[in-house]
Amino acid sequence: MFRAVARRQTRTMITSNIVVYAEHGEPKDVLRTHTYQIDETKLGGSEVVVKTLGAPINPSDINQIQGVYPSKPPMTKDYGTDVPVAPCGNEGLFEVIHTGANTELKVGDWVVPANVNFGTWRTHAKDDESKFQKINNPTQSKAAGKPHGLTINQAATISVNPPTALLMLTHYVKLEPGKDWFIQNGGNSAVGQYASQIGKILGFNSISVVRDRPNLAELKKELEEVKGATHVITDEQNNSRDFTGTVKQWTKESGGQIKLGLNCVGGKSSAAVARKLAPNGLMLTYGGMSMQPVTIPTSLHIFKNITSAGFWVTELLKNDRALKQKTLNQIVEWYEQGKLIDAPSNHIKFSEGDDLAKLYIDGVADKSGKQMVVY
Amino acid sequence: MFRAVARRQTRTMITSNIVVYAEHGEPKDVLRTHTYQIDETKLGGSEVVVKTLGAPINPSDINQIQGVYPSKPPMTKDYGTDVPVAPCGNEGLFEVIHTGANTELKVGDWVVPANVNFGTWRTHAKDDESKFQKINNPTQSKAAGKPHGLTINQAATISVNPPTALLMLTHYVKLEPGKDWFIQNGGNSAVGQYASQIGKILGFNSISVVRDRPNLAELKKELEEVKGATHVITDEQNNSRDFTGTVKQWTKESGGQIKLGLNCVGGKSSAAVARKLAPNGLMLTYGGMSMQPVTIPTSLHIFKNITSAGFWVTELLKNDRALKQKTLNQIVEWYEQGKLIDAPSNHIKFSEGDDLAKLYIDGVADKSGKQMVVY
Repeated sequence: MFRAVARRQTRTMITSNIVVYAEHGEPKDVLRTHTYQIDETKLGGSEVVVKTLGAPINPSDINQIQGVYPSKPPMTKDYGTDVPVAPCGNEGLFEVIHTGANTELKVGDWVVPANVNFGTWRTHAKDDESKFQKINNPTQSKAAGKPHGLTINQAATISVNPPTALLMLTHYVKLEPGKDWFIQNGGNSAVGQYASQIGKILGFNSISVVRDRPNLAELKKELEEVKGATHVITDEQNNSRDFTGTVKQWTKESGGQIKLGLNCVGGKSSAAVARKLAPNGLMLTYGGMSMQPVTIPTSLHIFKNITSAGFWVTELLKNDRALKQKTLNQIVEWYEQGKLIDAPSNHIKFSEGDDLAKLYIDGVADKSGKQMVVY
Repeated sequence: MFRAVARRQTRTMITSNIVVYAEHGEPKDVLRTHTYQIDETKLGGSEVVVKTLGAPINPSDINQIQGVYPSKPPMTKDYGTDVPVAPCGNEGLFEVIHTGANTELKVGDWVVPANVNFGTWRTHAKDDESKFQKINNPTQSKAAGKPHGLTINQAATISVNPPTALLMLTHYVKLEPGKDWFIQNGGNSAVGQYASQIGKILGFNSISVVRDRPNLAELKKELEEVKGATHVITDEQNNSRDFTGTVKQWTKESGGQIKLGLNCVGGKSSAAVARKLAPNGLMLTYGGMSMQPVTIPTSLHIFKNITSAGFWVTELLKNDRALKQKTLNQIVEWYEQGKLIDAPSNHIKFSEGDDLAKLYIDGVADKSGKQMVVY
């Protein structure tokens, strides 16, 4: 790969493919591929040219295209389109293939966008190096003596779900390792699995609530033995007042308290999560899969001083580059140490000549799991 | 009244009537009057004997007797009962009628209990002066040149509703006078009326939500012109998305934001209050009149960073005597200045020989308004 990069440096013009939309709507109706030229000979001193290695499809990317997401990329003619367009995609991994005279980044470095709305569904980009944040590439991890280098899947999905899990567990409530607990619904979601794994690494006990299902025993075993959950319980158990005694026994044995709840479901599931919190506990809501609003029994607010707040990684990290870098570095380190297992993606391979927008439209239509285009 | 006090100081034994219960249940089934003797000649240096002037019936008093309130007075044999009993009543006004050798309190001073669970439904009490907090009596207000002395109704109801309103408006979110807003449901409740009045005194704009009713125009006029609400709207307007534009226009004209919501209703009313908050706004829940849980649309938590928390004056002031005294002093001052109008009570007069428990049982049964026994 590095040899290929070196060859590219001798070219002067690169054809970039970028997926854009001029108006909001369903991806299949509004996405199109735009191509434009990047002139490597005209780089500013702090500019870099990057090549995309992988860029996933997140639900929020689709909502942005539909126009129903609060954070929106501005429409621009910067790519040489005749009408203003917005780029798609917020998460992705790039490799630096050319640098200006004065950059800290070097050819071969792996970078992710420093901010959302960068437009990651593209083959190449030219921008100031400040628009990117560096993470170790496998060669660098190996040189540093780490057991593992990151995979493209790990690095290309590092900006949203793992920081959401890590920051919810550490940025608000101080959980005492070995004693305290958090409880989460959506325990089998991508964030849920990162949270139980990171909880385990940090020594936090956890209760993961999952939907009942035919292969429950199997899932329970996987989440408890591989993904770090202390206990896995079903929605039915979460909603049952009889089950409260069991949960109290667990926390009593640990000498700790359930100080934090993570909610991505809403409705009665959120009420049942909130009911399990110790006095002064906090429930953070980061999703609403049931489409029901967050529900907090009044007495929990008044008499147990339970607080219900929201979490949005985009907003928290928007103006805090240092926190984002620290968070990424921690996740990279856990991947390098083999302590964290990433959520799998279906990889769709882009080859020169493919219609990139078509690949993403196919990815959006494929509901079999998380989709990522690799380049 | 002071002459009567002077006469009493020459006695040595006082017969105190106190309303108690030995087990939880409906007040009519479990309340009884217990009488016991207070020996004025055996006062510790920091002890005082007080005579009750007024003690109201609050909903939480009834819930305590029923056993469904989280804060409970301990059962005790201290009053000379043969079985352990708990005293009733949390709010009330006392006059000091006898003091130990080294008290700061003086005969004639007005005091309220420093803590909840004191047992205010009684004719007299003997206790350490630290169990009380002093507020100006009318003679002291007059001597200090204040336009008004407090009435017994104002002083006997000063410990719960006015501090709840004042502390919710000042202890959590900084509202900018002349610009910022709060919105509250239950705008015609006792706390709601204190909140709009105190808001007006402090320069905060307010929107009070009330139920639609035949005399709406009259109530609106009263709350806006006498009780300080900037705008009064109905539940229907609060729930209507069309009305949002009107609210936005009001806040735009003020140059401020709706940074605080006060909720004592729950259900869809709480969701509608939360929807009107500016980004990063806080909703405080202090009641749940609809019996529906607090409801927060998920997107408000995640994308507007709205936080939902509880308020319980008992818990906030439990270990903060200084804050309680400061809060009481402020409310006393506003009453002395004639700036604050108290919520009316029906006064039930206790006379020597009456069965005190019977008066409170009758008061609990009377749903025509807030009831208070005066002595």
